[in-house]
Amino acid sequence: MLSWYLESGKENDVIISTRVRIARNIKGFPYKLKQSKEDEKALLSKIKEITPQIGYGLKFLELKDIDDLTKMTLVEKHLISPEFAMDDKRQTAILLNDEENICIMINEEDHIRLQVFSSGLAIEEAKNLAIEIENKIGKLLPYDYSEKYGFITSCPTNFGTGMRISIMAQLTALDKTGNIRKVLEVVQNLGMNIRGIYGEGSKTSANIYQISNKQTLGISEEQLAKNIKQITEKIIEQERLARKLLGKNELELEDKVYRAYGILKYCRKISSSECEKILADVKLGTDFGILNELNDAKIKKMQLYTKPANLQKFIGKKQDAYERDISRANVIKQIIDE
Amino acid sequence: MLSWYLESGKENDVIISTRVRIARNIKGFPYKLKQSKEDEKALLSKIKEITPQIGYGLKFLELKDIDDLTKMTLVEKHLISPEFAMDDKRQTAILLNDEENICIMINEEDHIRLQVFSSGLAIEEAKNLAIEIENKIGKLLPYDYSEKYGFITSCPTNFGTGMRISIMAQLTALDKTGNIRKVLEVVQNLGMNIRGIYGEGSKTSANIYQISNKQTLGISEEQLAKNIKQITEKIIEQERLARKLLGKNELELEDKVYRAYGILKYCRKISSSECEKILADVKLGTDFGILNELNDAKIKKMQLYTKPANLQKFIGKKQDAYERDISRANVIKQIIDE
Repeated sequence: MLSWYLESGKENDVIISTRVRIARNIKGFPYKLKQSKEDEKALLSKIKEITPQIGYGLKFLELKDIDDLTKMTLVEKHLISPEFAMDDKRQTAILLNDEENICIMINEEDHIRLQVFSSGLAIEEAKNLAIEIENKIGKLLPYDYSEKYGFITSCPTNFGTGMRISIMAQLTALDKTGNIRKVLEVVQNLGMNIRGIYGEGSKTSANIYQISNKQTLGISEEQLAKNIKQITEKIIEQERLARKLLGKNELELEDKVYRAYGILKYCRKISSSECEKILADVKLGTDFGILNELNDAKIKKMQLYTKPANLQKFIGKKQDAYERDISRANVIKQIIDE
Repeated sequence: MLSWYLESGKENDVIISTRVRIARNIKGFPYKLKQSKEDEKALLSKIKEITPQIGYGLKFLELKDIDDLTKMTLVEKHLISPEFAMDDKRQTAILLNDEENICIMINEEDHIRLQVFSSGLAIEEAKNLAIEIENKIGKLLPYDYSEKYGFITSCPTNFGTGMRISIMAQLTALDKTGNIRKVLEVVQNLGMNIRGIYGEGSKTSANIYQISNKQTLGISEEQLAKNIKQITEKIIEQERLARKLLGKNELELEDKVYRAYGILKYCRKISSSECEKILADVKLGTDFGILNELNDAKIKKMQLYTKPANLQKFIGKKQDAYERDISRANVIKQIIDE
């Protein structure tokens, strides 16, 4: 079954992914700061018990039962945070389905951190699925709720709907033309957060921005989804316009993109950080419609399986950094030739 | 007709080219330092007159009649020196055949600087051809000769045979292993010169060394050729041995070579100096027998037609540096696809 991460979503020339996250706490269970070991265990037991009733092919997995390499693959896929993966003091778990588009963290900051992922732009779909699952769990285990503050969360910034919608966007042309500054300003004035995401292995920005809502209180889920969709569509429009302008100096871009492709195709070893940079360059090529030798799905696959932990999972054995650099080049060649 | 420069000669994994040069001065004509304009002209007229009798398809060309771009192509092919090409104060000429393996400079340091070139290792052949031509000219115009000093030249270091044999060798592995130091020492102790040649556009050494004789006096042409052949064969043997040892870490080399090939194949523009470096890297690949996508003849062709003047000749028009960078990438692609 294809992981959501490998699918090619809507507007994928600009939008990498959509994530909807809902934070909830279960009535009658102490919150993180007051949880004893027994409280943590009690919550896990309860969640484990109801997992089959939730459905969606979700499987209950305690983090202590997941080996380190697999945990790192989940971090690399952005399904769980590094802190959550590393925390060996608390009793934690996840509910995960095979497509990995639903990942619910248990005993993170809140009792329940429900996440729905989608490739490309899919705010409505992700939001609806998240709410559907939230309802289902809520019927099995009632949430803490206040008339005044809505759903209660560990951190008051999540009070209300407890919902955060995040969009990952590749804003290469806006970044390059400098127009990104205007976009950042406008988006922030509209009550949204937007911030640059830096590559994992490198200090250089991959021109990736995360757009998400600040507000969770006093706004309905419907309205929130509508607002963030409107803003995102505006940004997509602006980015595409900027790309058209940049396209006038197409040769420079073509040279950059095709050199990256040449290295990708012919290297015999490649480090994680160089690979990340090179993949960002070839992605420019498919996004701008000037590289025909690859497509978005292949690039997504390369982006995933060249990350250290996922690479080792993919080839089925543990390797040191030097061996990985060689395997990485082989996996890339394999995906190109598919 | 194929220029000698583009042919693939013997031992071409190590030896780039062989050049035999003979310096002569014509009896009864003043030497460079004492030549008046009229003397220069008189010599040119005389040489022009006898050119058809020399044969070998040689054409008499006054340098003032050659356009600058063509002059630069001759410099890039190492047929004439930059100083000779640039000297617009003296009346100078060359005798050149279509294959360009014979190039005789008139009114350079000596009246006659006869050069015979060959790709790869061809000391005997080049020496015999040079002597044959030297004899032919000497019968038409007697040379200055002394019983004590042999043939008289402008600079006393060329007295005697006036013959210099130069071998261009690619000593990558000896350079890399550091064993080159021992080779340099041995060669110099045997009375030969050996020096590193640096790339034209770059500060980095391309691991190319020129081996040539110091002595011209008191040694016959036969003995000289024999000596330099022996030394060169020893160097070839040492270089091949060093390559075998280096080959143990083949992956590093393969990575370097194939990355260079990837850039060569996919770049959309490339500068002269980067191109020189990249071509040296792919040449490693064919020399070491690890790059199958190219061969020596194609690399030679790329090396020639990516040089600024030859590039413009090849595409048939003058271009500025930026345009040339684009044309260079196109010409490379064309040669790869041939």
